[in-house]
Amino acid sequence: MKKIEIVQNILEANESIAARNKQLLDKHKVFALNIMSAPGAGKTSLILQTTARLKSRLNIAVIEGDVASTVDAEKVENEAMAVVQINTGKMPESCSLIAAMIEQALKDLPLEDTDLIFIENVGNLICPAEFVLGEHKRIVISSLPEGDDKPIKYPMIFADADAVVINKIDFLPYVDFDILSFRHTVEGLNPRVKFFEVSCKTGEGIERWCSWILEEMANPLQ
Amino acid sequence: MKKIEIVQNILEANESIAARNKQLLDKHKVFALNIMSAPGAGKTSLILQTTARLKSRLNIAVIEGDVASTVDAEKVENEAMAVVQINTGKMPESCSLIAAMIEQALKDLPLEDTDLIFIENVGNLICPAEFVLGEHKRIVISSLPEGDDKPIKYPMIFADADAVVINKIDFLPYVDFDILSFRHTVEGLNPRVKFFEVSCKTGEGIERWCSWILEEMANPLQ
Repeated sequence: MKKIEIVQNILEANESIAARNKQLLDKHKVFALNIMSAPGAGKTSLILQTTARLKSRLNIAVIEGDVASTVDAEKVENEAMAVVQINTGKMPESCSLIAAMIEQALKDLPLEDTDLIFIENVGNLICPAEFVLGEHKRIVISSLPEGDDKPIKYPMIFADADAVVINKIDFLPYVDFDILSFRHTVEGLNPRVKFFEVSCKTGEGIERWCSWILEEMANPLQ
Repeated sequence: MKKIEIVQNILEANESIAARNKQLLDKHKVFALNIMSAPGAGKTSLILQTTARLKSRLNIAVIEGDVASTVDAEKVENEAMAVVQINTGKMPESCSLIAAMIEQALKDLPLEDTDLIFIENVGNLICPAEFVLGEHKRIVISSLPEGDDKPIKYPMIFADADAVVINKIDFLPYVDFDILSFRHTVEGLNPRVKFFEVSCKTGEGIERWCSWILEEMANPLQ
């Protein structure tokens, strides 16, 4: 039972820091998206595509979470107004961003001049489901080559998402992925979820995804 | 510091259980492979392909690790002699198999009649790197659609692998994946690693991978 108590304490402490992060973001009218997925599903690509389309209208910052390396931060620094890299290092911190890391990162961002923050979580479908960060919306990306059974195998992260982005739809001719069955499984876990079918390579579907972000920013209490 | 001590205690306890598992396997002359990868890279497909080719020569059992569901166990039960499903449930256990779970699973397998066990770990490139299970060889699968930067971003799991299987090589015309650069990065972390380039869809490269397993089984002390 001791282990369970420790975990409970960590999660409660995380929630109270996340609530403080949310207050700080709301005070500065900054909208934050927590972008989660398996490794290689396209988190960085989605952030790059979205930032390229919205940067003329919004000041966009990115918080990049990685176990090691700065390769993603280097990719986005030309598109975003500001980028903060977090390296989560070794266990037990390594498998997800946690609210305390975001609290630190927010100190390095010009919040008064920022409209939108993308928080790119560590590539993992398990741990990030447990840790709220203070974000307004939780986004999960699933890519076609991963297979359509991921919501069955990693239900928690899908159950708690506000939107699921189905990426790499340009792979549809080459993979065995049943989009209807995938959506049906996710809806069974999470009836109110929004879906976006996109290709970050061809740009297909990105416009509708960007429109949704703008609508949510205009009505943050929805 | 308290948190670090607790983690240290968990890892040390895990190592001593893993050593007991290894002793038990060696006593029964059973060879065990720990198969690790990101979600959707092809762990189940590799186990199915390998089992189909080797089952006429070897008695093969599979231990299936998943956060939730039994979909993978159902897929392999026609090919393998015996299958044990482990559902790892919620945090903190959920992000990897640990040695104590394997200790339980081994009690449900007919070890005296088994030659080879595939342990399919939870789909994750972070946590499984920390937990030895008692396996003889640690295998990491990377698939082409994930991108060639995974060893830069998740170095620990690659640094400690005995073999890296590059799967979905039939996707080479459709993705931007530099196999030489990928191998070079992995070799920088781990000079003694073996590479196998395969397609679990077409069967390409599986023969060589199976030969390596048979060689390693014949010379387990190498």
